[in-house]
Amino acid sequence: MNIKLISRIIAMILLAESVLMLPSMFIAISDGDMKVAHSFMITIVLVAAIGLIVLKFVKNTRKDFYAQEGLVTTGLSWIVMSLFGALPFFISKQIPNYINAVFETVSGFTTTGASILGDVESLSRGILFWRSFTHWIGGMGMLVFLLAVIPVIGKNSGSNVYLLRAESPGPSPGKFTPKIHHTALILYGIYFALTFLCFCFLLAGGMPVFDSMCTAFGTAGTGGFGVKNTSLAGYSAYLQNVTTVFMLLFGVNFNIYYLLILRKFSSVFKDEELRAYIFLVFLSVVSISLNIYVSMPETYGTFRSALHEAAFQVSSIMTTTGFSTCDFDLWPSFSKSILLVLMCVGACAGSTGGGMKVIRISLLFKSIKRNTIKAIHPRQVWAIQVNERVVDEKIINGTHAYLSVYCSICLISFLLISLDGLTTGTNLSAVLACFNNIGPGIELVGASRNYSVYGAFSKIILSLDMLLGRLEIFPILLLFNFNTWKRHG
Amino acid sequence: MNIKLISRIIAMILLAESVLMLPSMFIAISDGDMKVAHSFMITIVLVAAIGLIVLKFVKNTRKDFYAQEGLVTTGLSWIVMSLFGALPFFISKQIPNYINAVFETVSGFTTTGASILGDVESLSRGILFWRSFTHWIGGMGMLVFLLAVIPVIGKNSGSNVYLLRAESPGPSPGKFTPKIHHTALILYGIYFALTFLCFCFLLAGGMPVFDSMCTAFGTAGTGGFGVKNTSLAGYSAYLQNVTTVFMLLFGVNFNIYYLLILRKFSSVFKDEELRAYIFLVFLSVVSISLNIYVSMPETYGTFRSALHEAAFQVSSIMTTTGFSTCDFDLWPSFSKSILLVLMCVGACAGSTGGGMKVIRISLLFKSIKRNTIKAIHPRQVWAIQVNERVVDEKIINGTHAYLSVYCSICLISFLLISLDGLTTGTNLSAVLACFNNIGPGIELVGASRNYSVYGAFSKIILSLDMLLGRLEIFPILLLFNFNTWKRHG
Repeated sequence: MNIKLISRIIAMILLAESVLMLPSMFIAISDGDMKVAHSFMITIVLVAAIGLIVLKFVKNTRKDFYAQEGLVTTGLSWIVMSLFGALPFFISKQIPNYINAVFETVSGFTTTGASILGDVESLSRGILFWRSFTHWIGGMGMLVFLLAVIPVIGKNSGSNVYLLRAESPGPSPGKFTPKIHHTALILYGIYFALTFLCFCFLLAGGMPVFDSMCTAFGTAGTGGFGVKNTSLAGYSAYLQNVTTVFMLLFGVNFNIYYLLILRKFSSVFKDEELRAYIFLVFLSVVSISLNIYVSMPETYGTFRSALHEAAFQVSSIMTTTGFSTCDFDLWPSFSKSILLVLMCVGACAGSTGGGMKVIRISLLFKSIKRNTIKAIHPRQVWAIQVNERVVDEKIINGTHAYLSVYCSICLISFLLISLDGLTTGTNLSAVLACFNNIGPGIELVGASRNYSVYGAFSKIILSLDMLLGRLEIFPILLLFNFNTWKRHG
Repeated sequence: MNIKLISRIIAMILLAESVLMLPSMFIAISDGDMKVAHSFMITIVLVAAIGLIVLKFVKNTRKDFYAQEGLVTTGLSWIVMSLFGALPFFISKQIPNYINAVFETVSGFTTTGASILGDVESLSRGILFWRSFTHWIGGMGMLVFLLAVIPVIGKNSGSNVYLLRAESPGPSPGKFTPKIHHTALILYGIYFALTFLCFCFLLAGGMPVFDSMCTAFGTAGTGGFGVKNTSLAGYSAYLQNVTTVFMLLFGVNFNIYYLLILRKFSSVFKDEELRAYIFLVFLSVVSISLNIYVSMPETYGTFRSALHEAAFQVSSIMTTTGFSTCDFDLWPSFSKSILLVLMCVGACAGSTGGGMKVIRISLLFKSIKRNTIKAIHPRQVWAIQVNERVVDEKIINGTHAYLSVYCSICLISFLLISLDGLTTGTNLSAVLACFNNIGPGIELVGASRNYSVYGAFSKIILSLDMLLGRLEIFPILLLFNFNTWKRHG
């Protein structure tokens, strides 16, 4: 394991983090909120100093950097980023408990949006900005950001790809161009442009500038932290619709946007994951609209109002954003069950959304179909195809294996947090909402409540779940594996 | 597809079923309960007549019978068996609704023990006997029973093995001896002997003969239908302990008993599934005992009483029996969560218990460990071993695939039954309790309640889940696959 190079990369991450805290500090200063401004200053100086010291004194001599190093660097950097990112909340006493501050920061970076705060409107604007900005940073990833700015591991090293891969969601993240630096630039370019577009549409609907920025960050990262206690319920139908559309857009694989730029429209049209994603959204919106329209006539007087709420909620849950416009815990069971299933499905691979990812679900269903047919004709050869290409059996087996470790981690977390004595529905939905990076669950952690009901131990477990979910398990799991730290060759 | 041979085997199943109804009829006659006796007579005559007519008029000329035919025969025979097995309940009007009667019969044969009845003590003894006897028949399987009596497909055909395999639970059911007929005989021999032993121990503790027989059937099949409204709560601690021990014994792979008969003690001692099973039982009992002893001091005055209840409940849930001595829905969340996880784990492969099976969970964990190590050393070859033997990669991949289809079916069923509008905890536990062949769930389908809260559609879905769970999915899934019924070659 190339510990020195890993330390240097994490030091660079810290430097980047200190720079990214500057806007929040300026907002606090311009608001005259010196206590918060100081907390940012202290953190920025501390974080930058640690980064510079490591870069100065740790010199890497070896160039070996492979998949293993990529995974470990990613896992460690996210943990370090969160531990330091929590300091402004803690030092300014806006979140006086450090565990709570870490929970909130992990929730931000992993774009979960689960909060321990009951009253976000009492927070200072600098803090609120940082809270929402962590979503934007975490959505595309800090390492990808770093790769876009500088080639982290030497200029012409192919090893940069291991960092990109470890941080990007989905079974087989691609690179658009041979140079990782270019791929990262293109990704952040698309990401920035779409976020800016979202911001403009929100602004055009009369949302204040500050709210528009924070909401755009939360939408882009599919995070879900809002600046109001009622999330998006207090905004106009137009603003809610803009958010619905942009949440869905950020749940799409960014490859699709690159294909659009290249004008490869037929590839976009034929993309199976995109089609499955649209189909699932459509099916869920129609089912829930009908269900709530029929069972809650007093709340939803017209089908249109039911459609409006259903579309927002489906888009928010499926893309794992977690914004809300109403308390869906009051909806009939069928609608709640659909949302629980969508929580697990999640968005497309290569998007900012979490969950299992649509492509994995699609592969699982294709594989189930094949196994059924194999039971009839054991000797028949049947290759699974996606987008008219045969999928390597390793990816199929890897997808099945991913589901196994996904279920195991969910069950173990569910067991551990149930020590706090809350209801089964609460515990189950808390694990699913954190692991899939959604945010609100049902019952005691529903849309109108928060995670302060849990104790410190459960908050740590749920924070780990958020990291495991965002980084797709292995970068974090490896850190807890004894073999990782053994010296080899 | 050899439809003629399949029809003949199902006809034989019907004949066997009619014979197995005779004891219940005699009990009804000896009780002077002529209405119930008549309902058995009508069913027996009808079922035997259909069986004889098919055997007389359908002659098989072809001898081809492979995995496909084995699976389809098994799936169909269990459905037919249940549809006719429900007739005595329905004709005698002890369960006036046919869907309910089918639910109860499927629940019996699949050894689930989920009931739609609130008051079982009002049932006639003939009916109660049949209800419990279905557990005993279903525990080891009707086809295995048939194979023990006659070589179903010609005397020396190797194809009998496809029937044994399709009906026996676990990833790789073995045959003890080259002759399937002998294997089936040995299985039923052990099964009968253990059941008789259980019956004697219950009788010795002062349980009435009828209760002892029914309880022994329910324990042997790991079913869970009782003859009292309070399940086993009304019996003495000795009787509860006997049941605890025998439930655990019936959750062990029957291979182990065969090895004991062959005096291969070292193989028994080294068996990894058995060790994992004992370890899980021990860990769960200790955790739950401590949890309920600490949080419910008023109910459990001594640690011994907590241990007693915990041992019974763990044994009942993990072996997927479903007997109860108390309402564990009142237990603290941690204990309930452990029980929910045990519901999914289930008993050992090759036992009468349901669930995922301990060996599959053990394989999944080994495979997760391997995948973590593979992420560090992609080129390292690492074979998964069980009992010091390398496990074929096909079985590993098959186990992962099994989990995928398991999760998918659970999610789809959960969605469908939530149309009835019950709580999330109820729906989730109902699906898990039926699919894993346990019986009672939590909340509205908890140990002190029953499944009558669901509508007809949900009862059909849950009945299918019970069949899917008992037959390990593929025999039932195939019946719904269009390709199965296409004519080939």
